[in-house]
Amino acid sequence: MAVKISLFSHKQPPELPLLSGVRIATAKAGIKYKDCTDLLLIVFDKPANVAGVFTRSKCRSSAVDHCRASLLHGIARGLVVNSGNANAFTGHKGKQTTNAIVHSASSILKAREDEIFIASTGVIGEPMDEACILNLLPDMASTAEEGCWLEAAKAIMTTDTFPKLATRQFDFGGELVTINGIAKGAGMIAPDMATMLSFVVSDAAISSDILQMMLSEAVQETFNSITVDSDTSTSDTLMIFTTGKAKSCLPCLTSQSDPRYWIFVKHLRELLHELALQVVCDGEGARHLIEVSVIGATTNSAAKTIALSIANSPLVKTAIAGEDANWGRVVMAIGKAGVEADRDRLKIWFGEHRLAVNGERDPHYNEEAVSAYMKGQHIKICVDIGLGSGKATIWSCDLTKEYVAINGDYRS
Amino acid sequence: MAVKISLFSHKQPPELPLLSGVRIATAKAGIKYKDCTDLLLIVFDKPANVAGVFTRSKCRSSAVDHCRASLLHGIARGLVVNSGNANAFTGHKGKQTTNAIVHSASSILKAREDEIFIASTGVIGEPMDEACILNLLPDMASTAEEGCWLEAAKAIMTTDTFPKLATRQFDFGGELVTINGIAKGAGMIAPDMATMLSFVVSDAAISSDILQMMLSEAVQETFNSITVDSDTSTSDTLMIFTTGKAKSCLPCLTSQSDPRYWIFVKHLRELLHELALQVVCDGEGARHLIEVSVIGATTNSAAKTIALSIANSPLVKTAIAGEDANWGRVVMAIGKAGVEADRDRLKIWFGEHRLAVNGERDPHYNEEAVSAYMKGQHIKICVDIGLGSGKATIWSCDLTKEYVAINGDYRS
Repeated sequence: MAVKISLFSHKQPPELPLLSGVRIATAKAGIKYKDCTDLLLIVFDKPANVAGVFTRSKCRSSAVDHCRASLLHGIARGLVVNSGNANAFTGHKGKQTTNAIVHSASSILKAREDEIFIASTGVIGEPMDEACILNLLPDMASTAEEGCWLEAAKAIMTTDTFPKLATRQFDFGGELVTINGIAKGAGMIAPDMATMLSFVVSDAAISSDILQMMLSEAVQETFNSITVDSDTSTSDTLMIFTTGKAKSCLPCLTSQSDPRYWIFVKHLRELLHELALQVVCDGEGARHLIEVSVIGATTNSAAKTIALSIANSPLVKTAIAGEDANWGRVVMAIGKAGVEADRDRLKIWFGEHRLAVNGERDPHYNEEAVSAYMKGQHIKICVDIGLGSGKATIWSCDLTKEYVAINGDYRS
Repeated sequence: MAVKISLFSHKQPPELPLLSGVRIATAKAGIKYKDCTDLLLIVFDKPANVAGVFTRSKCRSSAVDHCRASLLHGIARGLVVNSGNANAFTGHKGKQTTNAIVHSASSILKAREDEIFIASTGVIGEPMDEACILNLLPDMASTAEEGCWLEAAKAIMTTDTFPKLATRQFDFGGELVTINGIAKGAGMIAPDMATMLSFVVSDAAISSDILQMMLSEAVQETFNSITVDSDTSTSDTLMIFTTGKAKSCLPCLTSQSDPRYWIFVKHLRELLHELALQVVCDGEGARHLIEVSVIGATTNSAAKTIALSIANSPLVKTAIAGEDANWGRVVMAIGKAGVEADRDRLKIWFGEHRLAVNGERDPHYNEEAVSAYMKGQHIKICVDIGLGSGKATIWSCDLTKEYVAINGDYRS
């Protein structure tokens, strides 16, 4: 099947600045496809601080297990990522493969094993031959260069139709710091599912425990607020590394009360938001970005539950694919969410157009204007529950025949 | 768009026996389409006992509100059902419409208003003109006849491609009793969603409180164990009526310790199961019936959560549409369910074929045999969690391009 590039692809991928002491190499290991870069090594010349958040799946991969355990030490010297095989649900052999890659990278980089981080994305349940990776790592470590962020983003793609990158530079209490990030989408790779991966590197000086707090904070309204199809992978991984190379006379950030804390969180959140939207926009078959905002719920958590119920509803998602302002299906999705709502207090907008109010269709609703709005690429649905001040926003994409084709056609 | 009849349609609908004192009339009210029967009246010549279960939606219709409140009285004299308009999210006007129909039927049948039950299915949010219904009810009441079950099942259809009926006759502690049931599917009616409705009538003599216990029991593993697309309607209604007309010398069943209790529940459960499977098989675009059995979970409730996570996963459902035994996606759906599971204890079967064991692919898995199995219409997925004795079964259908077309194409 020919892959169509997403409508939302960058016209020109952003150029990411160099980060001193962060060297990148990519290679073609032939894990699944020939002539594709499918292996990424990031080397931190000096120990970097590290934090991460991972899938909550009960069936997570051994790579995720290794990373979670290694975060206790909080120091990173290297990151190895392969695409083409998730090395998930591969039993004892899978753990040996993870261990072998970690062991090899730690020898080459003269680091502890818990200073090497690893992620794998691609087919589930297929044993992975580590030899093709181990053979390449020594050369990659010696040839790795600063820069190369676009190549890094490409090496971790599976069914993504475009590489995902974002960058921020800002004043961090008197010095200019940079955050670079790459991601790959929650897509499918025939014949199995893939994974959301994202890796973020900054030259700010921030301790690993503070970095973990910042990441846990910034992920809530970004990567934890998107959904393509409600399916969660066994390998989802988001990690951040800080090198401290930008620091001049400023001390390392080690406390939440340091005024730089919220400066960094703000820019990190913006960067993660940009990457997360790229993931949603490149959801399989997506032709519309859907932004669901819920206000007036009893709590923020209730608002998020309702927003997810709308954003994951196959009936809402097919309606958007059909460019239909089907607010009746939004009512249905609110009703089934299982949290407090009152039919007779709901208000529903598509864009600027209020379609429903006081438990019925808005008498002033202009069908023609709304139909024109629905032809746009970015559809905003807003719901006011009318009960409190809880609010949340979720981003999703529509459900098209191409989604079914990508995920169901390969055997037929 | 031309509607294709489901592959699972009856070759010949079952013939349902007459039930004495239960008279049925159908009519063409023109609520949405011309020349379709869209109105059903069932008259109980003598007061019938009644029980019901309803959608848990927070945005339920006024018809559902009326039925729930009227169950307190526990007696039914008439049931009015229309298709073509759900009269849901229609505000104050919608309540007036419901009240007007109930009031009219109660006058005609010389019954109390809480002895009249009502259900509406079709478009959400569209005001419904009750005049076309009120005009027809007097004639329908006087011409209603025993029998006519097939016509009743047809009158409540929306996007169903075949009428749904089932019947059971059995020895009820010394007398022969009958249960007849009709249902309509959780389908869509352009341009809005429809509803699951089911109405069951028996000539057994059972008090309304016992009937409610029986129905709540029998619904769990039948209508509460099916899913087409995880979307729940504002109007889902399942009601049962008993006339007591079969009784000879036997007393009315008024206690759970009466040995006839479980006899009735068994046959009621079988009948509801048969209707529920007809609903799933007629899910939009469905080409495969999927039966997901989970065993070995920590509790029955955990087993049901896992089974629903598998049965609702778009990735599992598209894989079945593609006739692919994609057990990696089943692992993913188990992992994301949020209840206890251990990757390394899982076993997964498709039909008789074990594909995964001990946290990895089954080494004896025969891909050719499994591929042949996947071409069948009824796909059974069994998962052993390996942690306890909790179990559950959920029935679902695959996710095809036709589903997206039915629910998204009408505006494009």
